[in-house]
Amino acid sequence: VHRQNLAELQRKLDELHPADIAYILEALPLGDRLSVWQLVKAERDGDILLEVSDAVRESLIADMDDHELIAAAKELGADELADLAHELPRDVVHELMESLDAQQRERVRSALSYEEDRVGALMDFEMVTIREDVSLEVVLRYLRRLKELPGHTDKLFVVNYDGVLKGVLPLKRLLVSDPERQVSEVMALDPVRFHPDEDAYDAAQAFERYDLVSAPVVERNGKLIGRLTIDAMVDLIREEGESEVLNMAGLREEEDIFASVWKSVGNRWAWLAVNLVTAFVASRVIGLFEDSIEKLVALAALMPIVAGIGGNSGNQTITMIVRAMALGQINTANTARLLVKELGVALINGLVWGGVIGVVAGVLYGSWSLAAVMTGAMTLNLLMAALMGVLIPMTLAKLGRDPAMGASVMITAMTDSGGFFIFLGLATLFLL
Amino acid sequence: VHRQNLAELQRKLDELHPADIAYILEALPLGDRLSVWQLVKAERDGDILLEVSDAVRESLIADMDDHELIAAAKELGADELADLAHELPRDVVHELMESLDAQQRERVRSALSYEEDRVGALMDFEMVTIREDVSLEVVLRYLRRLKELPGHTDKLFVVNYDGVLKGVLPLKRLLVSDPERQVSEVMALDPVRFHPDEDAYDAAQAFERYDLVSAPVVERNGKLIGRLTIDAMVDLIREEGESEVLNMAGLREEEDIFASVWKSVGNRWAWLAVNLVTAFVASRVIGLFEDSIEKLVALAALMPIVAGIGGNSGNQTITMIVRAMALGQINTANTARLLVKELGVALINGLVWGGVIGVVAGVLYGSWSLAAVMTGAMTLNLLMAALMGVLIPMTLAKLGRDPAMGASVMITAMTDSGGFFIFLGLATLFLL
Repeated sequence: VHRQNLAELQRKLDELHPADIAYILEALPLGDRLSVWQLVKAERDGDILLEVSDAVRESLIADMDDHELIAAAKELGADELADLAHELPRDVVHELMESLDAQQRERVRSALSYEEDRVGALMDFEMVTIREDVSLEVVLRYLRRLKELPGHTDKLFVVNYDGVLKGVLPLKRLLVSDPERQVSEVMALDPVRFHPDEDAYDAAQAFERYDLVSAPVVERNGKLIGRLTIDAMVDLIREEGESEVLNMAGLREEEDIFASVWKSVGNRWAWLAVNLVTAFVASRVIGLFEDSIEKLVALAALMPIVAGIGGNSGNQTITMIVRAMALGQINTANTARLLVKELGVALINGLVWGGVIGVVAGVLYGSWSLAAVMTGAMTLNLLMAALMGVLIPMTLAKLGRDPAMGASVMITAMTDSGGFFIFLGLATLFLL
Repeated sequence: VHRQNLAELQRKLDELHPADIAYILEALPLGDRLSVWQLVKAERDGDILLEVSDAVRESLIADMDDHELIAAAKELGADELADLAHELPRDVVHELMESLDAQQRERVRSALSYEEDRVGALMDFEMVTIREDVSLEVVLRYLRRLKELPGHTDKLFVVNYDGVLKGVLPLKRLLVSDPERQVSEVMALDPVRFHPDEDAYDAAQAFERYDLVSAPVVERNGKLIGRLTIDAMVDLIREEGESEVLNMAGLREEEDIFASVWKSVGNRWAWLAVNLVTAFVASRVIGLFEDSIEKLVALAALMPIVAGIGGNSGNQTITMIVRAMALGQINTANTARLLVKELGVALINGLVWGGVIGVVAGVLYGSWSLAAVMTGAMTLNLLMAALMGVLIPMTLAKLGRDPAMGASVMITAMTDSGGFFIFLGLATLFLL
């Protein structure tokens, strides 16, 4: 009966899209995942490996021997092979490269020569190119001889004899134009194009802005070397959003939810360690004021409020600024104006919420000077949070770093240590 | 000279893509923004309003009189009009509806009848439909008569005389197939299709998974009523990622960076207020132990470390779980396994980092029993953070809420109050 069930399962898997099989594999614990993986037809392995998340791919590749890996990878195009190459054993990559013809090998090498975040690493090579001095009728006959067009072909690339891009012929135009006309009359002359060393994320923004489906990639001399397609850009847009969320929570990368405990510890420890150091610094700031706390123990109960609201407000500011920077909306001309606005928001919030909590603290502990210190400290800490929320990402960007990276940890560290210092310092000056 | 510059600027604006003008408008302070907006040709106003962010759109619409708004909206298609309708004055919408023909009016009504997050609200109506009992040659001649195809047309929709979808004819197949063949022989029979009341985000995931460019939207009886295109899905994927980031930082919505101080205060106050309440609760927990702190003031300095690390670790867990839930990877069968894993990670982190900070505290304050309490409290708080990090999003989902909503604030509230209680409680029991 068990064998019959397996045969049934295998039949069902054969009917599924590779992306659906990838989805199933990701949702299964390791043991079940590998059992299902064994049932998948070998010639589909490559496509499925491309679809699964990095963490799950690693677990599948670890289960395959060199022979299986080579068989799976042989079914892939040059750009897909380049995507997988980093994660395959070195001798498997070597053997695969040997088996390719010179053009394919050159393409894989070229794709591998670009950093992961460049256009060159994401382009593919499945383009249909045509000449400009033929009629549309000739183009239509040429396409029929091809039998099949690559996925996401919404335009044909018009090149001269040196391979230099002259324009693009959208299929839409090809279909509605008189077949007697020449390609050169109908083609679009100045299409959006990319260079292989451009930032892939900028390219994704251009795809979004101009509603592109595919676009040519050209060298500096204008020679067509590949194309970008919307599916790769969509993946990039999603990954960008995910990595922002993961970064903020202090996770190095997306986690296989069935990863071992040790693997998860490894993914999370770095940010916890950073947090431990910043928490220790904040603790030492409090240590400076132990005498004050001993004299007025209410300070110990109230200080986390000052620090916490500062952290929350600082994170709001920094998220706003990081987002505006990613959209290219911030320049030297408007920085001062932004800073004034953020300080204004902080001042209002500080006086209002600081006032509320000051009154509550005043009633609770029967001291109006304590209430005033509380309100003053909250206002000052919110102002500092606003200042740092603007300055931290801008400074990171000036230093050539990602403005989002660790920004949340840094702002929280400052509002914690700063909040404790301001509140306990004011209390020591005015209450004791 | 000033006027000459304006003419120059106007000429430059006329050459730009609406998306580029939208980008410029978003990056300008309100005064400059409205000056540039006045220079844009009236017939392009509609397209640009569709491209700008919600906050900026509001500022532009506020600056236009009814006459200008009607002129701008008249250039738009039914689906685009529906997108804008919520933000236009009621009498403008009324007048626009009056000016439409019956079919267009019906379409706008239909699009408006769906919630913002449904497929029906995002579909457009610009489809090319054909019959199945004609030859491809006839289809090609029909397309030539159309003069222009709608954007993102990668397939034609095959319908019968009742408008029921029979299949789709991808342009790719149309172009490579023998023109003598019938549509019914060449069309794809079982295309991915959507219903208007489906969740738009699920549709976006399907577009991503199956690499779609456009897809038909059909009623339950199979009748074709519209189509979805990849550009709307890309916008949705980006917005989803953004709202996750904004939610986590406690911002209600994306902010126009040049919004007035008052508007920004309004966008941020709700979460600050929630945070204030949770911070106050944490403060009262500390208040319970004021006697203990008075006796051993080191507790005041050490307690934020226990709370802070718990918050950081809890946010890591909850981010992981929320993400896995969004990807549909979590079900009742694997919940127990996940919980065990998260508790395992918490136990290791608690013992290791709790041990490190315990030793440091022990050396600093010369008390090994204090070190033991510190390590124990950190481990317990991390275990609680892991438990709550799994339970909070799952409970929210069971109650039909968005599992991400406020999850970060809730977990931080628990690890703060819980951390203070565990640490001060253990210290009171064992140290005093």
